[in-house]
Amino acid sequence: MGDRPSPRCEREEVAPQVSKLSSIDDPDDLRALPPEELPALAEEIREFLVSKVSRSGGHLGPNLGVVELTLALHRVFDSPREPIVWDTGHQAYVHKMLTGRQDGFDELKRRGGLSGYPSRSESEHDWSESSHASASLSYVDGLAKAFEITGDPRPVVGVIGDGALTGGMAWEALNNIAESSRPVVIVVNDNGWSYQPTIGGVATRLAALRLTPTYERTLGRMKETISKTPVVGGVMYDALHGMKVGIKDVLAPQGMFSELGLKYVGPVDGHDVAALERALRLAKDFGSPVIVHAVTQKGKGYGPAEADKEDRLHGPGAFDVLTGKALAAASTSWTDVFADEMVEIGTERADVAAITAAMLYPTGLAAFKAKFPGRTFDVGIAEQHALTSAAGMAMAGVHPVVALYSTFLNRAIDQLIMDIALHRLGVTICLDRAGVTGNDGPSHNGVWDMALVNAVPGIHIGAPRDGARLRALLREAVDIEDAPTLLRWNKGSLPPDTDAVRSATGYDVLSQGPRPDLALVSIGGLAPVAVEAAELLAERGISVTVYDPRWVVPVAGELIEELARHSCVVTLEDGLRQGGIGSAITQALRDQDTFVPTREVGLPCVFPDHASRGEVLAEFGLDAQSLSDQLATWYARQHGPHSAAPVAVSKALSEGD
Amino acid sequence: MGDRPSPRCEREEVAPQVSKLSSIDDPDDLRALPPEELPALAEEIREFLVSKVSRSGGHLGPNLGVVELTLALHRVFDSPREPIVWDTGHQAYVHKMLTGRQDGFDELKRRGGLSGYPSRSESEHDWSESSHASASLSYVDGLAKAFEITGDPRPVVGVIGDGALTGGMAWEALNNIAESSRPVVIVVNDNGWSYQPTIGGVATRLAALRLTPTYERTLGRMKETISKTPVVGGVMYDALHGMKVGIKDVLAPQGMFSELGLKYVGPVDGHDVAALERALRLAKDFGSPVIVHAVTQKGKGYGPAEADKEDRLHGPGAFDVLTGKALAAASTSWTDVFADEMVEIGTERADVAAITAAMLYPTGLAAFKAKFPGRTFDVGIAEQHALTSAAGMAMAGVHPVVALYSTFLNRAIDQLIMDIALHRLGVTICLDRAGVTGNDGPSHNGVWDMALVNAVPGIHIGAPRDGARLRALLREAVDIEDAPTLLRWNKGSLPPDTDAVRSATGYDVLSQGPRPDLALVSIGGLAPVAVEAAELLAERGISVTVYDPRWVVPVAGELIEELARHSCVVTLEDGLRQGGIGSAITQALRDQDTFVPTREVGLPCVFPDHASRGEVLAEFGLDAQSLSDQLATWYARQHGPHSAAPVAVSKALSEGD
Repeated sequence: MGDRPSPRCEREEVAPQVSKLSSIDDPDDLRALPPEELPALAEEIREFLVSKVSRSGGHLGPNLGVVELTLALHRVFDSPREPIVWDTGHQAYVHKMLTGRQDGFDELKRRGGLSGYPSRSESEHDWSESSHASASLSYVDGLAKAFEITGDPRPVVGVIGDGALTGGMAWEALNNIAESSRPVVIVVNDNGWSYQPTIGGVATRLAALRLTPTYERTLGRMKETISKTPVVGGVMYDALHGMKVGIKDVLAPQGMFSELGLKYVGPVDGHDVAALERALRLAKDFGSPVIVHAVTQKGKGYGPAEADKEDRLHGPGAFDVLTGKALAAASTSWTDVFADEMVEIGTERADVAAITAAMLYPTGLAAFKAKFPGRTFDVGIAEQHALTSAAGMAMAGVHPVVALYSTFLNRAIDQLIMDIALHRLGVTICLDRAGVTGNDGPSHNGVWDMALVNAVPGIHIGAPRDGARLRALLREAVDIEDAPTLLRWNKGSLPPDTDAVRSATGYDVLSQGPRPDLALVSIGGLAPVAVEAAELLAERGISVTVYDPRWVVPVAGELIEELARHSCVVTLEDGLRQGGIGSAITQALRDQDTFVPTREVGLPCVFPDHASRGEVLAEFGLDAQSLSDQLATWYARQHGPHSAAPVAVSKALSEGD
Repeated sequence: MGDRPSPRCEREEVAPQVSKLSSIDDPDDLRALPPEELPALAEEIREFLVSKVSRSGGHLGPNLGVVELTLALHRVFDSPREPIVWDTGHQAYVHKMLTGRQDGFDELKRRGGLSGYPSRSESEHDWSESSHASASLSYVDGLAKAFEITGDPRPVVGVIGDGALTGGMAWEALNNIAESSRPVVIVVNDNGWSYQPTIGGVATRLAALRLTPTYERTLGRMKETISKTPVVGGVMYDALHGMKVGIKDVLAPQGMFSELGLKYVGPVDGHDVAALERALRLAKDFGSPVIVHAVTQKGKGYGPAEADKEDRLHGPGAFDVLTGKALAAASTSWTDVFADEMVEIGTERADVAAITAAMLYPTGLAAFKAKFPGRTFDVGIAEQHALTSAAGMAMAGVHPVVALYSTFLNRAIDQLIMDIALHRLGVTICLDRAGVTGNDGPSHNGVWDMALVNAVPGIHIGAPRDGARLRALLREAVDIEDAPTLLRWNKGSLPPDTDAVRSATGYDVLSQGPRPDLALVSIGGLAPVAVEAAELLAERGISVTVYDPRWVVPVAGELIEELARHSCVVTLEDGLRQGGIGSAITQALRDQDTFVPTREVGLPCVFPDHASRGEVLAEFGLDAQSLSDQLATWYARQHGPHSAAPVAVSKALSEGD
């Protein structure tokens, strides 16, 4: 080995002498193992994870952190009868390995292969497959309520990270769970990076004591002496009025949970299977809501992930096992251009601030923060607060730029409408990972943004087609002070700049056809597809002019006038076709009594399966070849023997160049 | 007075001998008053409130509860420089009276009159005008951040009810505010109905002690000895790890706030202006985030409101001052029919449960709860949790019916898409107050629902036109177990049933025209408008057939075939026309290469000003007369000398009956 770095899992090429992991087909096999064999199994699981994810890409750090926790959960709870719900399901790889899916990891996140999240079609052990944070506790509250109603009560487990607890949904659920007496076990997977847990004898004994029948009887008697008044959110009421102060155990760090009236066990060393099993068994036997606080280390057991300060091994692409470094050199991304332009703007304008919801690095705001820490706010996994605190900032003369992933804006539609748009505030929202994202599956696709945001009064939506337009639109956006602005761009590499062949108020022309046969309006990053499709259609004798409105909402009157001169109009967007930008453009045409044949090309309102972005786009006909095929057929139909070409169209044709 | 009931404000007809209230034009006048005159002023304010609201209708209980609190706030804080943000702004009437708007109360909530909520166009003292709960703390966090950035820091105040604290947004904001050191004062207006506050000497002294510089220096030294690790949501980290346990004051009921690291003053008697002023001044001078816990009584000072167990005087229509009883007899409402049918369904099916978000009475679920308490869940002001806990219930074999106001569904769009629709779960969402609601102003209109929900994969949307259809669609909805269903109806009185003249798969025909000139597709409760408009158009020689799809999404193929036989198609909905149901219907027509003239009639994407429902509908042309006028003009244009009537249309015309 010499003086090479020595990550603990570097020996992944060497098969273990006896594979315990491969002998486990379901949780029953796991439960049959003697406890002393579990550390070796955990080691094998880590080697497996690093080996597989280093090839396929995927979520690494979170899964390395929950190896022992997952083992303990599946030894204590009888899944699937006793549901285990994983918050932000990217921490469920070990769960998949223990529930019969080890063979699938070679095709992880690939089309037709294993999903990167729990998947109900893969296994009955997977209850929820969504991956937006903070939802798990609401599911388990609902599950517990339903099992009570159907007369078949049983323990239900939600596993939630400390980060996800910052989301408002988690609070709403805790408030409801705490008020109940159903058998809900909340496992807080707390991987605060540098924290050293005060585990050991005292805490363990205190936790046991707290759950013994004697202690509970005492608590019960005290509770009976307090007449509780029915009020919405009784738990909050309790917390406000401190009914439980007298019986609080101040030696154990129960924090806010005890204030909510929730029993608490912990902190437990999240890498000690035996300790975890003890705690979980206590919680399970208790029969009422309990928090189990497990302290884990993200990336545990793999040196490069443990040392990963910028969290690059949270969800890497393929990487070198020895160093943890990415195998493919990163090309310039949309995110990079945004990051760079934000720093430029921040340097010029002291009144521009940045907000993110636990996504400082992924959205590109880390550079802004490095230079302007006093103007950068990471609010936690809290998109609602991100938007409404931005509204507050704009009310007081600051222009906030809120950077989110497109799919997570869905969490804050109300705040965008009621808190920002109603007040006509100059807030700029920048959505990364808009459109089809692909491998992360249905809940990460950013295909909803434009259709939903179309319902926001007064908003300006910009969809840059390349880096130059991203920079320009971002500057235009932060100059708008009396309305919200929203920009959106795709995941991944930046296409080369597509310069306009001519520009006018309201649109750029990217490709000019000789005749006004067909106008193709391209929205955002699909511009190269549109231009290529136009070339392919020209080869078939159909003249196409490609327009890019840049600002797509409000729809520019000049664009509509120009489009109305064509015999057909097609729109192309990387988002839902129902209610999307194309739908707004063709409605504007109809509102002017222009009833030429129009077609909105985009995504149907379905959840695409995981696959690469290119594969998903192709599946829905959004690559240049399929698009040109579709449009050629469609155009011929409008102009064939059964053509419905209206009079106005012929007129427009004769007026064209 | 004899033995009549003796409400304290019954003398509203007798003018007070010296009106203090009328001498107050702005907060400066209030601050000039000697403290001993404040109780009399408070009395005058209550008389004014009861007198005015008994005539105009409006929010009564909440405003009677905050009279002294509002006086104290305006005496301590220098509004508007020091912003006071009111959560769910219906508690801002007293604030309006003290900021120059007493004269406006005769026209409260009427068109052109005073808004029932704060309004930035009315006064510079009004910072936020939205009325969705739990947002205030996010605004004040943003305001405080911005004032720091612009170098002009000052105290900012958020006033939030105990109910609104159950909303997730409030948690997200608290988590951020607590981590900061900006001068944010959070006033918890705690009107838990039967709670008796433990106020007085000890609590007051403790509160003062807690905020003295000496105490803070001690705290500061202790904090310095703890090395804090940077982590998203550092406050949660603190709470989890109990860093502050050693310095917690267990004598005062600080509850969860101290766990979050927030200073706390209280509980304070919310009807003692002097005590409130002391507490608020301490909080203001402290210069860092402080919670002031004011215990108030909803309806305070007006007997019928104090005794109001079902909260009918929260926001009544015009009422009799002596008894608190409504002046107009309540006619049967959409809500009544829903309430009744839910009980019927609950009786037949033990697997149907009901969920509401702090709206048990207004949504009509109180009757269900009375009969099936174990199957009824009020989750607090927590729409996100309402939907995702419903998802959990459906996963475990229960069919939940979630009843909300339409506008509040906007809070849970993500949960509907990712937590319910992604899993294809049988959850039924019933939206009351859908469409234009009118007097409660822009943030209560339920005009977003259909446009937003159109983006939910696989959902079924039903829009009943009358009580009979509400009952039928509700029964059909709870029978669908593999997809979410959503029903929506208007505020207020139920129209008479409109029976179909004929029915087919996918639609009812409400009115049959002799020729296929114009098909009018009516969505939901606007059916009487559509039928009347058809009659008016018939008088002008235009034959109109009126369709009601009942289930409006997915769009029925049979409906599209039928519509394609007409020379023009118009849709009518009480919601956004962009991306709404009409937009989906006309897109389906175009997808079949049917390019007949179509028009989607509905609401533009704007915030309507407050006015009656009828006035708002008329303003946007959604009454029968304006609709028929619009359509007559439009129809003539399509068939006049500049007509663009396509060939296919003529064909369809000749094929018609």
